[in-house]
Order: sequence, then C-alpha cells, then structure tokens
Amino acid sequence: MRFLRTLVGAAGGLGLTLLAADRPNVVFILADDLGYADVGFQGCRDIPTPQLDALAAAGVRFTSGYAGHPFCSPTRASFMTGRYQHRFGYENNIAFDPQNTLMGLPVAEKTVPERMQAAGYATGMVGKWHLGAAHLFHPNRRGFDFFHGFLGGGHDYFEVSALRPMGEGYQTPLDHNGKPREIDGYLTDDLTRAAAGFIRDHRGEPFFLYVAYNAPHTPMQAPQERLATFAGISDPKRRTYAAMVSVLDDGVGLLLRTLEELGLRERTLVCFLSDNGGPPTANGARNDPLRGGKGSVFEGGIRVPFVMSWPARLPAGTTFAHPVISHDLSATALAAAGIGADTLARLDGVDLLPHLLGHDSRPPHEALFWRMNGGDQWAVRSGDWKLLQAGPNLAPALYNLAGDLAETRDLAAEQPGRVDGLQARWKAWNQGNREAFFPGFSDYHKAKNAFYKTLVKPTE
Amino acid sequence: MRFLRTLVGAAGGLGLTLLAADRPNVVFILADDLGYADVGFQGCRDIPTPQLDALAAAGVRFTSGYAGHPFCSPTRASFMTGRYQHRFGYENNIAFDPQNTLMGLPVAEKTVPERMQAAGYATGMVGKWHLGAAHLFHPNRRGFDFFHGFLGGGHDYFEVSALRPMGEGYQTPLDHNGKPREIDGYLTDDLTRAAAGFIRDHRGEPFFLYVAYNAPHTPMQAPQERLATFAGISDPKRRTYAAMVSVLDDGVGLLLRTLEELGLRERTLVCFLSDNGGPPTANGARNDPLRGGKGSVFEGGIRVPFVMSWPARLPAGTTFAHPVISHDLSATALAAAGIGADTLARLDGVDLLPHLLGHDSRPPHEALFWRMNGGDQWAVRSGDWKLLQAGPNLAPALYNLAGDLAETRDLAAEQPGRVDGLQARWKAWNQGNREAFFPGFSDYHKAKNAFYKTLVKPTE
Amino acid sequence: MRFLRTLVGAAGGLGLTLLAADRPNVVFILADDLGYADVGFQGCRDIPTPQLDALAAAGVRFTSGYAGHPFCSPTRASFMTGRYQHRFGYENNIAFDPQNTLMGLPVAEKTVPERMQAAGYATGMVGKWHLGAAHLFHPNRRGFDFFHGFLGGGHDYFEVSALRPMGEGYQTPLDHNGKPREIDGYLTDDLTRAAAGFIRDHRGEPFFLYVAYNAPHTPMQAPQERLATFAGISDPKRRTYAAMVSVLDDGVGLLLRTLEELGLRERTLVCFLSDNGGPPTANGARNDPLRGGKGSVFEGGIRVPFVMSWPARLPAGTTFAHPVISHDLSATALAAAGIGADTLARLDGVDLLPHLLGHDSRPPHEALFWRMNGGDQWAVRSGDWKLLQAGPNLAPALYNLAGDLAETRDLAAEQPGRVDGLQARWKAWNQGNREAFFPGFSDYHKAKNAFYKTLVKPTE
Repeated sequence: MRFLRTLVGAAGGLGLTLLAADRPNVVFILADDLGYADVGFQGCRDIPTPQLDALAAAGVRFTSGYAGHPFCSPTRASFMTGRYQHRFGYENNIAFDPQNTLMGLPVAEKTVPERMQAAGYATGMVGKWHLGAAHLFHPNRRGFDFFHGFLGGGHDYFEVSALRPMGEGYQTPLDHNGKPREIDGYLTDDLTRAAAGFIRDHRGEPFFLYVAYNAPHTPMQAPQERLATFAGISDPKRRTYAAMVSVLDDGVGLLLRTLEELGLRERTLVCFLSDNGGPPTANGARNDPLRGGKGSVFEGGIRVPFVMSWPARLPAGTTFAHPVISHDLSATALAAAGIGADTLARLDGVDLLPHLLGHDSRPPHEALFWRMNGGDQWAVRSGDWKLLQAGPNLAPALYNLAGDLAETRDLAAEQPGRVDGLQARWKAWNQGNREAFFPGFSDYHKAKNAFYKTLVKPTE
Repeated sequence: MRFLRTLVGAAGGLGLTLLAADRPNVVFILADDLGYADVGFQGCRDIPTPQLDALAAAGVRFTSGYAGHPFCSPTRASFMTGRYQHRFGYENNIAFDPQNTLMGLPVAEKTVPERMQAAGYATGMVGKWHLGAAHLFHPNRRGFDFFHGFLGGGHDYFEVSALRPMGEGYQTPLDHNGKPREIDGYLTDDLTRAAAGFIRDHRGEPFFLYVAYNAPHTPMQAPQERLATFAGISDPKRRTYAAMVSVLDDGVGLLLRTLEELGLRERTLVCFLSDNGGPPTANGARNDPLRGGKGSVFEGGIRVPFVMSWPARLPAGTTFAHPVISHDLSATALAAAGIGADTLARLDGVDLLPHLLGHDSRPPHEALFWRMNGGDQWAVRSGDWKLLQAGPNLAPALYNLAGDLAETRDLAAEQPGRVDGLQARWKAWNQGNREAFFPGFSDYHKAKNAFYKTLVKPTE
Repeated sequence: MRFLRTLVGAAGGLGLTLLAADRPNVVFILADDLGYADVGFQGCRDIPTPQLDALAAAGVRFTSGYAGHPFCSPTRASFMTGRYQHRFGYENNIAFDPQNTLMGLPVAEKTVPERMQAAGYATGMVGKWHLGAAHLFHPNRRGFDFFHGFLGGGHDYFEVSALRPMGEGYQTPLDHNGKPREIDGYLTDDLTRAAAGFIRDHRGEPFFLYVAYNAPHTPMQAPQERLATFAGISDPKRRTYAAMVSVLDDGVGLLLRTLEELGLRERTLVCFLSDNGGPPTANGARNDPLRGGKGSVFEGGIRVPFVMSWPARLPAGTTFAHPVISHDLSATALAAAGIGADTLARLDGVDLLPHLLGHDSRPPHEALFWRMNGGDQWAVRSGDWKLLQAGPNLAPALYNLAGDLAETRDLAAEQPGRVDGLQARWKAWNQGNREAFFPGFSDYHKAKNAFYKTLVKPTE
C-alpha cells in the first residue's frame, strides 16, 4: 500500500499526470441535521451560504438526493461502506461506550477508506465518527490514515473535559490520531483547519478526505460575533442555527479555496450533503416544503441538500432529477479511484458518473429503500411514486412526488395494485437485511443501567 | 442568570450598595473528620489554631452545633440541599465509581449552589465533593460555576496518578473544572490557593464559595516542616493530625485575610464546621468530653466545632446554645441571598439569622434527628434531652445533656413517658424518609466484584 | 525500611564496605519470547549478540536453564514470588482489564521486590509487568519503588495512544510511576535508558532492578536503520526479529557499561533469561535443536538462554548443567540480599550460589515441574529423564535428554516403571497446587463479552 502510493507519487513527478488526473481526489463533506431548505441553493432566504451555493453552481445539484436513513448513525454506516446498513444490522443510533467492543460498524465490513487505501489513496477523516467508540472501531483502524475529530454522536462546540464528559461523550477531548486535544476556538473552525491541513499535507498524492461536520447538530452553540450578524432572526434557536450553518459555509469555502490555491480543484471530486433531514424542534432547521423531519420516512426526514462537483469531468450548473442516495457517492468515489467493477457490483451504491455524463440514460436505481425500527417505519421510492409506512400498525400510504412533494394526498386507496407492487418490492429488498444487532442509545443505556441497578439498591 | 448577575454588579457600581451589602458573600468552610475538641476555641491545648479561634471570636460559636450525619457523604448531601438526606434516600457513604450514573446526589434535588446561581451569585467549590463520581453528578453540573478538587471521599495529599489511582480514587488527578491537574505542593495549601483565587476573581459580584477541605481525613500525611513543629507530641498519629489541622488553620487564615484585603470581610458570611465527629482510631482526633466518635449517634459522632461570622450583621464573641444542624447553614445562606420564604419552607434547614439576632427567641428546632444504617442506629434531640439507639436491637437510651454531656447516665428506665414521646417524634419524622437507594462503598464493591467473579473463575 | 537503607549507605561511607560488597546489587534482565537458539552464546549465527555473549562469558551459562512456564504471564508470577505459580492458581495468560480488581498476582503473595525492600534495597522495574492491570496490582504497589513500563502483555514499539489503545492495551501510554508518558524513540531503547537511569540514581545503595524487555515479542517492529543491517536475512519476519534482538543486545550492553562506569559491575549479580521458548510462527524465533516452542511442554517451550554473572563471587566462563528454573534466580537474589533461610525454605526456588561455588555438589532440584491448562499438559524433569504429557488424553512420553535433546524417542513403553515413578512424583507435586482462579485472556474476553451481549442485541 505504502509502495503503491509512492509509485503513484513518482509517476506524477515523472510527468505521467494523466494517471493522477484520471483518479481524482475525493472530498466528502457531510453536514449534520441540516434541513432541506437551509442553504441558499435550496432556496433559503435567512441564512446566506455563498460558499455552498458556489459549490452547487460549480457542479451537479441533485433534486432528489436522499440520505440512507432518517437519522444519523445508520446513514454514516451506509456512507462508509457503500451498502445499505441493514445488510449488516446497523439500524439504530449507537450509544457512546468505549468499553463495549461489540457495538460499532462491524469489522467484517470493508470500509470505503480501506478500499481507497488499497487503491493508493491517502485517507483522512475530520469530525464526527459515530460508528463505535471502542478501540477496534476507531477511524484509524477502519481505513483512515489520519483522524481528527470525535467518536460519539455529537460534541460541545467549545469545551472538552477529560474528567467531566457529558453523557454520550459530548465533551471528551478531541481525538487526533488517538491523542487527546483541546478544541482550538470554535469546533467547526477547528475541524475546517484540520481538513485544510490534510489537503495541504497530501497535495502531492491522491487523497480521500471525509469531513463530517457536527454542525448544525445540537448543542446549539455559535460564536458570539457570528450570532450578532443574525440579530434579525427573532427566534433564538433559529438565530443560533443560522450562525452555525454560516460558520459551516465559511468552512466549506476555506476548503474549496485551499484546493484552488494548490491547483487541485479541477481534479477533486467534492460532494456535499446532510446525513438526514432537519429536526425543526431540536435545532430550528427547516425542510419546507417537505413533510416531516429527522426520524421520519416522509421526505423531510430523508431528502437533503445534495451536491457533487468535479470540474474536470462534470459540467457546472446542472441538476439531476433521478433519485440518488448517499451511498451512491461512496460507489462513485470508489469507481473514480479505479476500484474494480466486481467490487462495485457487490455494493448497493451505484457509480453515478455514467448517469451524470449521459453514458447511461437510465435512472441509477429502479427503487430506493428505507427502514426504521425493525420495519415499523419504512419507505420505497420508484420513479415519482413513494410508498411508506409512517409508524407501527399504520396502513401504507402512497404518494406521487411529481405533483405532491409535500406528501399530503394518500393515493393508496385509489391504486391498490401500485401499493401491492411497491410493497412487494420493499419486502424483496428487506429479505436481504439483518435484524439490528444493537439497540438505540436510550435502550442501550436502560439495559446497562439495569446492571448497575443490581448494584445500587437498598442494603436493607 | 448571567443577566441577573450583571444587574447586581451594575447596581453596585451605581451606588446602590445597600443591595450588595444586604446580600452577603457566603463562604462555607468544611473540615473533614475534625474532632470536637481539636480547635482552640473548643479548648484544644496541643494544636494551636489561632486563625479559627479568631474566626470564632469574630462571630457566633454554636455550642450545640451538629453535623447532619455521623459520617461524611450523607452530611454533605444535606449540606448541599438544605434537606435531611434521608428525604431522598442518601444514607450511605458513596463508593467512587465514575462509570455508575445511578449513584450520586439525585439530580431531582435542587442544590444550594443551583439556588444561589439562580439568585445571581457566582458559585465556586474547592475540595472534596463525595456526592457521586459520574459525569452527571459533577459539581459543575450541580450548581458550581467553578470547581477545583476531587470527586471521591478522600485524597492523597501529595500525589496524583493518572494510571495508578488508589482504590476510591484517592490518587486521581485533581479536577479543575473537568480538566486534570497535579497537586501544587501540599493538597491543603493547593485548595486554599484555589479558594483565595476564586474570591479574588469574584470580588466584584456576590459569590458563594464552598471550601471542603479533606484535612484532617486520612491518609495521614503532612508537610515535613510542619510535622517538625509538633515534635512535642509523642503519638505519631496525633502528631501528623496536629500538623494537618495546623495547615488547615493557616488556610482559613489566608482566606479571611484575602477577604479583608479586598474589603469584603464585613459583608461576607463565613461558616466553619466539621462534617462529623472525629474518628480517634483512624486519625488521632479527640472529641472530649463527648462519648463516641465518627460513625456513632452519641454526641462524639455528631456534635462538631461550629462557627458563623458575618461582621455586618452578627455580633462578635457570642455563643448560641440552642441545637442547630449543618443544613441550617444552607438555609441561612439561601435566606441571606434573598431566596423566597416559600422555598425555604420546603427545606428542613432553618434560617438562623432571626434567632441569632433575637428577632425570634424560640429555639430554631423543636427537635433534631439522625438515622444510620436504615434505622439500626438513630437519635433525636429536643431541648436538653436526647434519645438514641446505639445499635440494632438495642433499647433506646435517654440522656439529659445539660448535666450529662458525656452521655453516661441512661435515664430511659426512669422516664418511660419521655422515652415514648421522643421515640414517637422520631418515628413521625422518619415517616417522611426514604430507604437508601445505594449501599455503602464496601457493600457496593462486594456486589460489583460479584459480577467480576462471574468472569474470574477456573476455566476448568 | 528507609532507615535501614540509610544505615547501609552510611556504613558504606564509613568504610564498612564489606557489608555492601557482601550484598550485591541485583539486575534481572528478562527477554520476551526469545528462542533458545537466538543468541550467540547459544550458537546463533545470523543475529550477532556480542553484549549478551560477553555477559555469558563473564559468568555462568546454564545449559539446562528453564522458564517456569511455557508462556509469559505465569512465568512472571513465579519469577516475582520465588514460588511455583500454581501454588496460588496463577496458570493462565492474564487479560488486560484495569477495571477488574480480582485478577492479578494475588496480593496475599509476598513479592521478591517487597522482600528486597524490606532488606533495605532500592527496587526498580522497567518494562512489561503482565501481572494484573488494576490499581492494586501496580508494580509500585507490589514492591517496586520505581516503575517505568506498561501493565499488559505486550506493547507497540513506537506509538502510544490515550484514546485508541489496541486490544490488550498495546498502545496505552507508558506508565512512569503512575504518570502517562510517550515512548522516547524505539521502546527497547526507551526501556534501556530508564533502566540505566535507575542504576545511576541508586549507585550509592544496594538496588534490585528488574528489566523486563518486551522484545522480541510481537508486534514485529524494529527501527528502520537496524532493519537495514539485516538485509541479508531473506525472511522478513526473521529479519525484523533479528533487528529487535540486536537492539535488545545493545541495551544489555549499555546496562553493563553503566555498571562498569559506576564501579558497580563486580558487586552486581546480573541474570539474563527468556520468559519461555520462542514462538517461531509468531515472531520467527528458533529453538533448534529443541522440539516445540512457546506454549508447549517440550524443551522448546521451556528451555531458554539462561545466564548469571556476579564477578565478585562467581567464576567467569563456566557452565552449569544441572536443571534450574527461573524462580531459582529469585531465591538466589533473596539469599544474596541476606533474606533468612526460614523464608527461603518456604519458596520453591533454590539459592543456586552454594551449588555454583561447589559448596553443595548435589543438583539444586531433585525434579522440576510444569503444568499447563489445568493439567492437560504437564512435564517433570529429574536428572536426564523427562516425562511429559503433550495434550489432553495423550499418554505420557518419556525422554532421556542426555542422548535425545530433541525429544524424538519416546521410551515410555520400554520403561514403564520409570514412567510410573515420574508420574507419581508429578502428582505429588501437583497436590500442592491450586486450580486457576482466572481464565486465559481469550476466554476472559469471551465471558466479558457475554455480558455485553446482554446489552447488544436486537431491540425487537
């Protein structure tokens, strides 16, 4: 692997630049709990996001871009493997427990960065992991040469504490390749600097960089001076949210500028998306005009801002309307890195490039699928049609998204045949899934506390 | 809260000094396992405590001042809430286990520092917490803006070790607002410096400071040079004890001097007491002429040195003879900070000020109560009379403390009616109590090890 | 103890040098998984070990020197106590679990360094402990004034990580008297420097130093420049192994030079041995011409390079052919330090000095014994004869090592009487043993994970 990288580097030095040009750098930028309607290129009015808008303008905006799951940890599991996370039972939001070596992205699953490493890429990750806190799940052990971030599902934006970590590890020291670190200033800025540093350090070799901002996830914290620029927003939660998104936008700008200054922008594939829909109550996000939000299989829970830019290959200023899903980006990156077709065929994600370049005019997927809580909620989208079950024991509802983006008119009663067809399709897909092998974090803590309760009880 | 504090500060700046003067700073100084007879103002001869004596001379000495419990952790639970700790099942000495989030001062209980914060006070704690080691019980999460100390029931006076903590955490790094710290010199001096620093940092606003020295609790360790000044004490344990108390006395002196230098002494309510009676065998403390010591409901286990000084309001050089208890200080501080009467009425502690100033000539309490080990031991004091049960299945004993401070003459047989009356009173009080919700630390470790024993056993 | 040390120091200063000369310094150097054939003085050709060869040439080489166990942790348990580890149920390779206070060298067992401390020695340990990771088993609590090393069964040679320790703690920060430390360069060099520092710091008083190198145990990691000098070895594992052993040899050289420069070499008893036979598959070690390796009761698993040098007392360039075992060195050191005969008589180790000096012409032991896996494997050696059972339900095999060092000719069928006699002897020895009180590390983790599996399972 080290040898392979050296070779690639040497080849570049000898003028064989075609190789490097053909194999782009890849930068994945993931926002956390960002709403569908909360960036300029999605029509947002109260939060300027000039950098993200420029990124979207420089590439392809996906108007039906989906997250792999209505919430955080499972989306990341599919994003990091290129497979539906249900294939390996990763369906719940994982608890933070560094002692538990059984709970994390299964080590049997080969990760995207592992495959990129094998293809000669330098691999780096910055930000939120949320795929297991025990040592064997650490990003440095799952394919990332470089890691600067944290292992839990969120983090305080200013403070770390070695002795007083909040529940779920929100104040654990930052983890810099396994060494503890303070936050340098505001966390989003700290992460941006680490990401830019990785780009600079690896300018001379192909690299894969995964920037997983925790912004604008709770806790709602923003730098005072940035908050001041949003004084016009009266709702304090939305005001803080706006400031958090605005700093994130700055960060994306700095990363793009860094690529440009190093002459790498042309041959770098940059993707931006959110890990799930926005949760209006928790952080003030907005998903208009979509129905629902984070934790729901309605569009508001899964359809997200979704952009891909690769100046050397992809036309600027375009949109793509066929449904795509976050782990398509994983497959696209692997394909661009030269991973063999046989490997890609074993993934659920699809290489989008042929579809974007018009080499393949079919939609990337015949259907996309979601499942939550062991199937209590699920959805399938095929073409403009979407069938979903919004809760346990509810009848499936059928929507035509072409004319009813807000999912207000249930057509199930009118089109029982279509309902049956889509439901059969979902069931067939679900045949290949496994039950969740760990519970969600609150159930987990309940079970763990049950053990402690055997210790903590009256002596009498 | 921040706003409120600013207001108070601004009001002070505008000359509305009455407000600040009316609402004193509050400094609670708690010694740990200090005997009833081990300070000069209690008649001690072999350990000079000029600073504590001066403090007592400057205010009110309580001749029947009691700790809320015969041992450490429960006294602190009542001290930090203003309520009898049995109200919420906090009856045992808590084990040190940062992993156990179920064991600590219940989060449902509002703490004194939380109430002081809400009243606009800056709140700081220095020293021994001993009310839960898991993150959610951390002093910074229970009302203290500032914390410098440790979470367990004691600490080595010189050494910390990140990798080799003694049982019960006696060598964990000091915790400075959640960040690890070495001890700077001798622990008692280190704590004094942190407390003085807090006073200086908050000179311009009302503050509540809780200085919980672990001296003279075991381990018996004192600076070499201070030990030398007690060469005349032949018993080595008492010699070390004397040196430890002497350094503690210096510390109190430095705090008082700091207040004076900043011009705050007049308007600062300073209290000093011990968390329970001295344990002669463990640390060489003396409780003469009282019977028993730490861990006993005889006077030696609960009657402690007890002083309150507030030059702006309280006359110097006075004594107060009616029985009072540690959580009366909590109520007094809250009342002085302007906490409403309705809140105070829900506490068990009583605002002592009206009694000390003669506005209320009744005794603060009709009776005081103690309970240990689920009721195996208990005591009630009313007026000069005390009824106690010293162990399981023992008959209650009745003493008249006016003539029999040493509790040597059991009058129970002579006064069965008084016995019945006092016992009925204790039972009525006990109706409002809960059973302990966690075991004492040795039972806890036994139970926890039982789990490990399921792992550690022959493979055969 | 402190007084005793001072006395000895003062006596030395007054010219009473006989005392100090009579009581040597003791330096135990233990290699980890070093093969029988992998040092020059054992005939190794591809790895130069000039320093170890010089050490062997300066003292006594034991041609039948045995480790107390075919693998690591139990050998160390006997080495640190002077007793067969089975006496106290220490039969398995211990897991790394700092939370488990029940699993380690039993605190009821008095350690060699504790006895040396009591005899007035400064005691230091450098390197791999592997006798329990919970606080109460820490070397500083088991007799070593000074410790610099790590608590688990192995360690990365370059990296530590506070947040990302490998399984079994291979990347925990180094532990320097309980404080975390980075590795300074290559671990073997770091340990050597710490050991040399201890020698310098204690040049003026008798000292006991235990240098437990983890080299050449896995992970296979060596400094690049040293690897280069072994480019002639084609097998990459053996090449790395050779480099690791070579750096270890340098380290021993530096320690010997340090002793010489301080004028201590004459009166220092230096021992060198391996903790068990080499594991050829794991690290490329060789045990030729012996059969088997680490984990086996054949000679390759237990017979190791074994040297003792004490210039003031022992002749140079000699060999000793009678069977001896690692904990004989413990007894020899204790005897040399003046520990009473009554204490020594309670140990299984034997003071070798009288045998080496010809004061006692008998073999040190009538027989030596080994036991693995609760008796599934066992061996006894008496004179040239060895009876062993190589696995569960196998018939014992009898070898005459005088003519059959490679254990190829089983004579059990020819000499049933000798088989019975040796087996009876082993059984008699085994009467005094206890069953293992903790399982091997993989069984331990299996059992611990069984608990976590009660937490990690489908929510449905």
